[in-house]
Amino acid sequence: MKKNLLLTSTFAFFLSAVAIAQNNEVTQKIKDEGLNKSKVMETAFYLTDVSGPRLSNSPGLERAEKWAVEKLKSYGLQNVKLEPWGKFGKGWEVEKYYAAFTSPYYHNIIASPKAWTPSTNGPIKGEVFLMKADSLPDLAQFKGKLKGKIVLTPTTAVLATSFKSDGERYTEEELAAMVAPTPAGGGQRGGQRDPAALARMTKLREFRTQLTAFLKEEGVALILTYSRGNHGTFFTSNGASYAEDAPSALPELEVSSEDFLRMQRLLVAGMKVEMEADIKTKFFDKDLTGYNVVGEIPGSDPKLKDEVVMLGGHLDSWHAATGATDNAAGCAVMMEAVRIIKSLGLKPKRTIRIALWSSEEQGLFGSRGYVAQHYGDRTTMVLKPEHEKISAYYNLDNGSGKIRGIYLQGNEAAGPIFTEWLKPFADLGATTVTARNTGGTDHQSFDALGIPGFQFIQDGLEYNTRTHHSNEDTYDRLIPADLMQAATIIAAFVYNTSERVEKIPRKELPKAQLPVAR
Amino acid sequence: MKKNLLLTSTFAFFLSAVAIAQNNEVTQKIKDEGLNKSKVMETAFYLTDVSGPRLSNSPGLERAEKWAVEKLKSYGLQNVKLEPWGKFGKGWEVEKYYAAFTSPYYHNIIASPKAWTPSTNGPIKGEVFLMKADSLPDLAQFKGKLKGKIVLTPTTAVLATSFKSDGERYTEEELAAMVAPTPAGGGQRGGQRDPAALARMTKLREFRTQLTAFLKEEGVALILTYSRGNHGTFFTSNGASYAEDAPSALPELEVSSEDFLRMQRLLVAGMKVEMEADIKTKFFDKDLTGYNVVGEIPGSDPKLKDEVVMLGGHLDSWHAATGATDNAAGCAVMMEAVRIIKSLGLKPKRTIRIALWSSEEQGLFGSRGYVAQHYGDRTTMVLKPEHEKISAYYNLDNGSGKIRGIYLQGNEAAGPIFTEWLKPFADLGATTVTARNTGGTDHQSFDALGIPGFQFIQDGLEYNTRTHHSNEDTYDRLIPADLMQAATIIAAFVYNTSERVEKIPRKELPKAQLPVAR
Repeated sequence: MKKNLLLTSTFAFFLSAVAIAQNNEVTQKIKDEGLNKSKVMETAFYLTDVSGPRLSNSPGLERAEKWAVEKLKSYGLQNVKLEPWGKFGKGWEVEKYYAAFTSPYYHNIIASPKAWTPSTNGPIKGEVFLMKADSLPDLAQFKGKLKGKIVLTPTTAVLATSFKSDGERYTEEELAAMVAPTPAGGGQRGGQRDPAALARMTKLREFRTQLTAFLKEEGVALILTYSRGNHGTFFTSNGASYAEDAPSALPELEVSSEDFLRMQRLLVAGMKVEMEADIKTKFFDKDLTGYNVVGEIPGSDPKLKDEVVMLGGHLDSWHAATGATDNAAGCAVMMEAVRIIKSLGLKPKRTIRIALWSSEEQGLFGSRGYVAQHYGDRTTMVLKPEHEKISAYYNLDNGSGKIRGIYLQGNEAAGPIFTEWLKPFADLGATTVTARNTGGTDHQSFDALGIPGFQFIQDGLEYNTRTHHSNEDTYDRLIPADLMQAATIIAAFVYNTSERVEKIPRKELPKAQLPVAR
Repeated sequence: MKKNLLLTSTFAFFLSAVAIAQNNEVTQKIKDEGLNKSKVMETAFYLTDVSGPRLSNSPGLERAEKWAVEKLKSYGLQNVKLEPWGKFGKGWEVEKYYAAFTSPYYHNIIASPKAWTPSTNGPIKGEVFLMKADSLPDLAQFKGKLKGKIVLTPTTAVLATSFKSDGERYTEEELAAMVAPTPAGGGQRGGQRDPAALARMTKLREFRTQLTAFLKEEGVALILTYSRGNHGTFFTSNGASYAEDAPSALPELEVSSEDFLRMQRLLVAGMKVEMEADIKTKFFDKDLTGYNVVGEIPGSDPKLKDEVVMLGGHLDSWHAATGATDNAAGCAVMMEAVRIIKSLGLKPKRTIRIALWSSEEQGLFGSRGYVAQHYGDRTTMVLKPEHEKISAYYNLDNGSGKIRGIYLQGNEAAGPIFTEWLKPFADLGATTVTARNTGGTDHQSFDALGIPGFQFIQDGLEYNTRTHHSNEDTYDRLIPADLMQAATIIAAFVYNTSERVEKIPRKELPKAQLPVAR
């Protein structure tokens, strides 16, 4: 027995060594394809420059989706399709934007219509009205005075000279700190907020709603809103609802800080500011359904091919730029990862499925809808049969920065596996495995249902300072070497997940969220 | 004799001690007025936000000049006037700027007409034509193809993520290095340029002229030019001559790098880019004369009041913003310095004269014209009587940064004087006296004639990265504490110069520049 055991053990060791050797060979091939024969920037070009802004259900998103479907087919993926995830609402795009102040002198204004706000009533001209109101009683004094006016609601923001670089990469110290256990009760996202601050926030939000209703009732022609940012960079958002039955809103511009503050200073000093504007926006309501792009490399192992490994990023963006880092980067990387696997002729055992989500920006709608349809209900925790068949979901949505490691979302059992898988990429700067959570994007839709869902740790670059939701989130912001590195690592992770004997271990299932009695 | 000598010496020491004590008292008063009761930001607001862009001979410059004249009068200055310095040429301003590309999708373009370029022929629409030409022979292929076209001449520029802060202050090490003797034959501005590089530059310039002539002849509708910058910041210049008899040029836009590069990438990939634009610019030729704002605090000492101490900065700016750091900052500081002196009721012995120059941006014309009229001819070195009567000229034109010291322009004899005068401002960060030259602004007009002319060392802040000649050189860029510090130090320097027994020592007179035989 002893001898036999030894033989078996030796044979197992031999098999394991062969597997590791094969795996190393595949990893080297993936590295070569991903780093030396990359197509990731070409993909990024089509998703950004060629498709344009990709607001949910806009023509730009449709262009990108159609292009992605054709491209994935051309790689040899199967079952490539636009898969509906549910009802979203109206699409919207800018057909014309022009605004300038014309007195005390002429100055063209850097700004953008807020998403889903309507056109001005043709070209308009008029004095800018400074309306300082902080609470409901303040509004009374303006009753009857705002009809046809261009209204500026002041900000207390002041710009500061920046002595910190816009772009940054993680230092070794910062990465080490991410691995260290966080002190109890703090240090991670999602901590308790100060109740007083929450109350103030709620009150502010209430007043914003009251203000909007008041301005609508008074027949204001155009609202000017301060947009944070600096030096011509500004950040965009939505100004009205995309719902099918949403009441019409007012035209509203998000104005770059310098242009806004200049007008505000002049108005506060009692000077007359006159403005002209011409904004045309268009709504699209023929098809209110939201879609994800989905495609597969079918599994080759008869026992495992019904199991899947998923990877994805969101294809939708905000409207003032082309959403290069948020998140054409992630989509281009994921498309590149499946291209690498296909182009090497690898035959993964499990099915590899890519998904390019939509409506992430409005609340992870595309991935949540997909998860609800395929895997179960996040509230009741009633699961579907596919829930057992998915090994893991990998997401990339923190900009153009290269991968420095991975967040386990508290799934510590996955730690040793990923630590092993990162080893061949230490030379590319990816070494860190942290138990921590990270939030704000589509892996959470999977994690909410107990499916191993991961977001990689990425160098921040200019994500927070310049690109995330800004008017300057363009192709220029992408760093080719970083995207190539990310695609290479993800190709290897996805392939390793497909080949692994077991699926990726899971955390305990989250509890059903029972309705709370009120 | 010995006793007498001792008595005299003691008395002299006593007088000197009194003078120093008085001087210290004045310095404290200046500090209090400049740091605690400052008006510098109010002045800056009127020069920037209220006046607008201040291109030479534009209505914006005229507004600022008139306001400055009235303000200086209100401080109690005398002989305040607009003093003509010679013939400049036409003024110009933007009356409307609108441009967007409309295909493959709509995108409003951040750009500015180049200074002194004409209007488009009303609103125009058309395909953007990519015209790659590097030398005269390249142009032939485009003959007859460009009539009415919007032409984009490509750039090889690529944007990079910034890992360095936009703003910076001098470190103690950098300041120390400025004081250290520079190695022979290097380390200072104005070193010998590589002859091959110079030849390439000359050739390039020649080709630009040929290209412009060709495009004009072909009847191009609009030229799109790449403008360096990042994230919505771009830098402006002039695109045509301001001369009275200048031939008409073509409409030309300086386009922000992201918008330019996006169009270029689409065109290089063979895609159709369509554009619409509407540019109205206006020329002003009623008065071609250039003016400086000049005003005085007349001297109070019968023997010294004919002697002057000058201080100044240039009031003109580029056109895409309000020239806050270049150089409303310098003008506001100089106006504040004379306000401080007047408001304290000081009676300077020598006359203090402030000058706010114009047309600095086109070649220091305002200050050169002034120097030629008052002090002599920089070529022949034929001097005028006033040349002997000026003690020094102090200039501020390196942005919003606080003063860290002063450049001696090689006038080493002035070093110990300035070192002494800076002592009370060590606590404000101003300590450095360097023998080095600095160039590029109006103190050079004085220095060229052997008059002690100085520019202060200022923290760079965002001058090179964001503000100098950019579309984002606005009031927001000014740091109040820095401008207050500068005004305080300059008030003290100017007052000290007016009170000093001797005038500031001079360098040897430059040699006349004899005509070179060809």
